[in-house]
Amino acid sequence: MNKARIEAFSDGVFAIIITIMVLEIKVPHGAAWSDLCQQYPIFLSYILSFMYVGIYWGNHHHLLHTVKRVTSTIMWANMHLLFWLSLVPFVTGWMGENHFAPHTVATYAIVMILCGTAFSILQIAIKKANPDEGRLGLALAKLRTKAYLSVVGYLIAIALAFVNTVFSGIILLLVAVMWFLPSKAVEEALLEEQND
Amino acid sequence: MNKARIEAFSDGVFAIIITIMVLEIKVPHGAAWSDLCQQYPIFLSYILSFMYVGIYWGNHHHLLHTVKRVTSTIMWANMHLLFWLSLVPFVTGWMGENHFAPHTVATYAIVMILCGTAFSILQIAIKKANPDEGRLGLALAKLRTKAYLSVVGYLIAIALAFVNTVFSGIILLLVAVMWFLPSKAVEEALLEEQND
Amino acid sequence: MNKARIEAFSDGVFAIIITIMVLEIKVPHGAAWSDLCQQYPIFLSYILSFMYVGIYWGNHHHLLHTVKRVTSTIMWANMHLLFWLSLVPFVTGWMGENHFAPHTVATYAIVMILCGTAFSILQIAIKKANPDEGRLGLALAKLRTKAYLSVVGYLIAIALAFVNTVFSGIILLLVAVMWFLPSKAVEEALLEEQND
Amino acid sequence: MNKARIEAFSDGVFAIIITIMVLEIKVPHGAAWSDLCQQYPIFLSYILSFMYVGIYWGNHHHLLHTVKRVTSTIMWANMHLLFWLSLVPFVTGWMGENHFAPHTVATYAIVMILCGTAFSILQIAIKKANPDEGRLGLALAKLRTKAYLSVVGYLIAIALAFVNTVFSGIILLLVAVMWFLPSKAVEEALLEEQND
Repeated sequence: MNKARIEAFSDGVFAIIITIMVLEIKVPHGAAWSDLCQQYPIFLSYILSFMYVGIYWGNHHHLLHTVKRVTSTIMWANMHLLFWLSLVPFVTGWMGENHFAPHTVATYAIVMILCGTAFSILQIAIKKANPDEGRLGLALAKLRTKAYLSVVGYLIAIALAFVNTVFSGIILLLVAVMWFLPSKAVEEALLEEQND
Repeated sequence: MNKARIEAFSDGVFAIIITIMVLEIKVPHGAAWSDLCQQYPIFLSYILSFMYVGIYWGNHHHLLHTVKRVTSTIMWANMHLLFWLSLVPFVTGWMGENHFAPHTVATYAIVMILCGTAFSILQIAIKKANPDEGRLGLALAKLRTKAYLSVVGYLIAIALAFVNTVFSGIILLLVAVMWFLPSKAVEEALLEEQND
Repeated sequence: MNKARIEAFSDGVFAIIITIMVLEIKVPHGAAWSDLCQQYPIFLSYILSFMYVGIYWGNHHHLLHTVKRVTSTIMWANMHLLFWLSLVPFVTGWMGENHFAPHTVATYAIVMILCGTAFSILQIAIKKANPDEGRLGLALAKLRTKAYLSVVGYLIAIALAFVNTVFSGIILLLVAVMWFLPSKAVEEALLEEQND
Repeated sequence: MNKARIEAFSDGVFAIIITIMVLEIKVPHGAAWSDLCQQYPIFLSYILSFMYVGIYWGNHHHLLHTVKRVTSTIMWANMHLLFWLSLVPFVTGWMGENHFAPHTVATYAIVMILCGTAFSILQIAIKKANPDEGRLGLALAKLRTKAYLSVVGYLIAIALAFVNTVFSGIILLLVAVMWFLPSKAVEEALLEEQND
């Protein structure tokens, strides 16, 4: 019961975050394709963030699937994650409007590190309240490895932002792609759970 | 369980897309009806897009009704569809503010093709994961015919945009009206399923 | 099943309509209370619309409670209602920013008539698909009487808008207050249903 | 059934309120960190409001957990609470953009008092309709003590706003922190209920 409402609220916030980002894409004043093309950095940053928020939604979805008992700590850890994710539309707009300027790209990567950290905190809070995690323990551990890799990627992206932001963008994209590959361990664990 | 959360998230995104479009209708500075009437292209484009997003919601609703097993592919195909739909408020605003200028109408139709393609991809992904579709197979196939017709309509609308955008607008409207006619096959299949 | 998703989608749209209206209240540039007070017509129109959308949500909630079988007609009638309601933030902003100028107040009342008509169409569509309505028939009929009274109120508000918009505002408020009084017939019918 | 839809609608409104606040953080025109830092009051006010709305969501969540019978009074009391909460993004933006100017801070605290009062009214309405509250009665009573303390805190914050708004901000933060501490009584009562 508790869980259903946390999911509903989080789904609402995820849906709004992913959709209001499009409000940052201001309608160009001209009516020609050339006017549209000038906004290409805004579209690129939108695509990147849409992927990231989509990935977070998918992982959040899987993570909450493993919850049986909801505690106050889980509720606040979840709110903390949503806080950092809520800043994604802002940093997306800032990065896009300024054509991937160094400081904006670095800020984007920093917010991504904070989102990732918040996700890990939620993961730990859930594990603490639901210690009998069974096969899902391994799966969660594997996700954590991916999380560490992502942080390394973000840190490299921050450093490269001051050299050439194109490299930073490519690394941010690669991190997203890595997350697109579904975690076999999580899926198998979920499947097993469904069969029980 | 999985399915319920995909529906909840998609419903949230659909609801937000359909509602934030109204934010593109800027409040006119004057207080007279003549000030309101000057915005008629913005209202026309809003009505058209409201119809389209409403149609997609209805079809999405029916399509997900046929899902029993949710896979990662379905989740990403759904996210991909929501991505293209999320651009609808932007192209609606661009088309409306520029009084249906050729490039804006063509862009609108292109986004519609991409939404339609994404819907078909989702349909294929669902069919693959749920091969035992029974009577719904025929119904889905019939929807696909409508989808092909729509793409033809959109292509004609793009071509006509460079001749006279009024014709493009009429074709876009006709495609929407075609989708308003409910698919008997889908409804009967759903009804049959309910009776089982 | 069908019904749950119509409710979820409608709830999402209602929640967004009622909340994005606050985006029309632009933050004043000054930092003093006098700057805030200058915006009083915007706040008044916001309160009025919040009441109206809240009332529609409550009535929609009750009306859908009586649905057992969802048809395509019900789905489109619901979408049609949401369309007119989605214009409420726009007319609210227009009326508020222009200090209840005659044309804006009349437009507001016209949109209210269209919302009311759309609600009646939905009511009829639901009755047609669910003819065995039992005691709820009387309750719905009584709501329809209130709806007729509202339309009369809106028409008077339109006429008075060209004399003195203060009178129009009072009538619009009275109509809202009339709807705040809960329909005993509907509640008793719902209660009876719960006891069965 | 009734309750589920009130929760869904409220969750939607909460999710939107908490997320649209980020729209008040306008993307800075410059691309350097110094441009971002100039907006620090806007970020501070955003963090504060995110905490408050998050706390209200958590408490609302617990409070509705105790509801068995939904009445019209509860529905309107809930709508009334959502009305005051919907003004939070506005006062947050006003306070942030004006660097915590006295009048803006006082207005923020006044809106907080009104939100708190609305929450208490909802609490009373729920108690009246669900008198057999059992152990939850004590838990609710304890929450009410916290509510009184908060009002005292808000009043002090209003008074101090005319002396030094830094003190007001600290008190507003302390009130939020007080609410972060979970109410043992409520949690135990909920736990007991789950075990029954």
